[in-house]
Amino acid sequence: MMKRWGVVIVAAGRGKRMGTEESKQYLQLGGKPIVVHTLQSFQAMTFIDEIVLVVGADDIARCRLWCEQYSLTKVKAVITGGAERQHSVHAGLKMMEAEWVMVHDGVRPFVTEQAVARCCRAAEQHHAAVLAVPVKDTIKQVNSEGIITATPDRKSLWAIQTPQAFRLDVLLEAHEAAEREGMLGTDDASVAEWRGTSVVVVEGEYTNIKITTPEDLPWAELLLQQRQSASAERGKDND
Amino acid sequence: MMKRWGVVIVAAGRGKRMGTEESKQYLQLGGKPIVVHTLQSFQAMTFIDEIVLVVGADDIARCRLWCEQYSLTKVKAVITGGAERQHSVHAGLKMMEAEWVMVHDGVRPFVTEQAVARCCRAAEQHHAAVLAVPVKDTIKQVNSEGIITATPDRKSLWAIQTPQAFRLDVLLEAHEAAEREGMLGTDDASVAEWRGTSVVVVEGEYTNIKITTPEDLPWAELLLQQRQSASAERGKDND
Repeated sequence: MMKRWGVVIVAAGRGKRMGTEESKQYLQLGGKPIVVHTLQSFQAMTFIDEIVLVVGADDIARCRLWCEQYSLTKVKAVITGGAERQHSVHAGLKMMEAEWVMVHDGVRPFVTEQAVARCCRAAEQHHAAVLAVPVKDTIKQVNSEGIITATPDRKSLWAIQTPQAFRLDVLLEAHEAAEREGMLGTDDASVAEWRGTSVVVVEGEYTNIKITTPEDLPWAELLLQQRQSASAERGKDND
Repeated sequence: MMKRWGVVIVAAGRGKRMGTEESKQYLQLGGKPIVVHTLQSFQAMTFIDEIVLVVGADDIARCRLWCEQYSLTKVKAVITGGAERQHSVHAGLKMMEAEWVMVHDGVRPFVTEQAVARCCRAAEQHHAAVLAVPVKDTIKQVNSEGIITATPDRKSLWAIQTPQAFRLDVLLEAHEAAEREGMLGTDDASVAEWRGTSVVVVEGEYTNIKITTPEDLPWAELLLQQRQSASAERGKDND
């Protein structure tokens, strides 16, 4: 029997890498903003009780409207983010009532309930867990002159995704300490690790992409079509 | 004025990650085997003089047939690979006459002439260069128990692609030494680095994907369609 979970969805970034006027989380995908797809995924998961959406100040109004329009009843608050992603997460965490909480990127609409449930179960056992996939590429460290300086062993490297799942008090305490001491991590796992929490990696799916650059958009359209035809097939089976 | 270049195309892998009966380099993409797309890309590059294709022993016959069928006139030899990728590359290098040589994965059909030319120009200046893209994900080192042990600074991390470009004598000497001393690298840059050569990173393109897992195939189909419609558009302009 799984615990009850909350999720902070972070969509306050400006997405400079996309090169579009509109922030990437609001670009249309199959007729809906990307962030709405993400919210709908979590709305549909049975073990999720509450969602807090963190966005830019200018985007509060349209996000609230979408929550009504798409019946996103689990979204208990749409709030303004901070200067850095980490501050946005912290603001979201403070709104949470659930004992267990995930943090998820607004631009990762394709995460599946199965992968999220695996991540949450691992967190319930170990206090902190993140979805990740083994890296496929050779990754190298390069110095500021563009010269390769090291090739870390690929077998030990994972590309970290979200959601990242924690006991709320563990993550909140780590964020408070990070704010006090001016520590900025690249993700929530970094903040928890910095505070001495062991974080376990749970194998996710390569299709849980973060829509970041223009190349990702046609791929995202394709993934969406695959999801829709798979779900239409399941609908037929149920008739 | 660019030098004249040769390229070793490595297609001897069995591709366990694809989960198909057929090796990934021979799967059909838009009606042609993936490796044929790759060969055609290099056939079309004006500064390339010779191509050596390294494949499994059972695949020599059909690959030679395709070289005829698709008029791949720059392919001077189709040879059998070794037990490891590195041995296959070494076998290919020994066949080369050009002073400058690239090594390229048979399952990266979408590399562009512009990116390859940038890589070759950098190699002509520095003796060794590889195409790479900045990593988008947070990469973490994970121990054998699945616990995160380190988060290397993302700004210093690049995902390495191919082609990797070298002065032939530099790379060949490194491969010979590696074979003598039983050193196995993850790529040719590793072999050259191990031998003390500085390798520079040249920014490539995210679309230069390595077709590795089943998720990559629909994406590859999409990239192929984009290439074909872009090239049809250019054709119209020339009328």
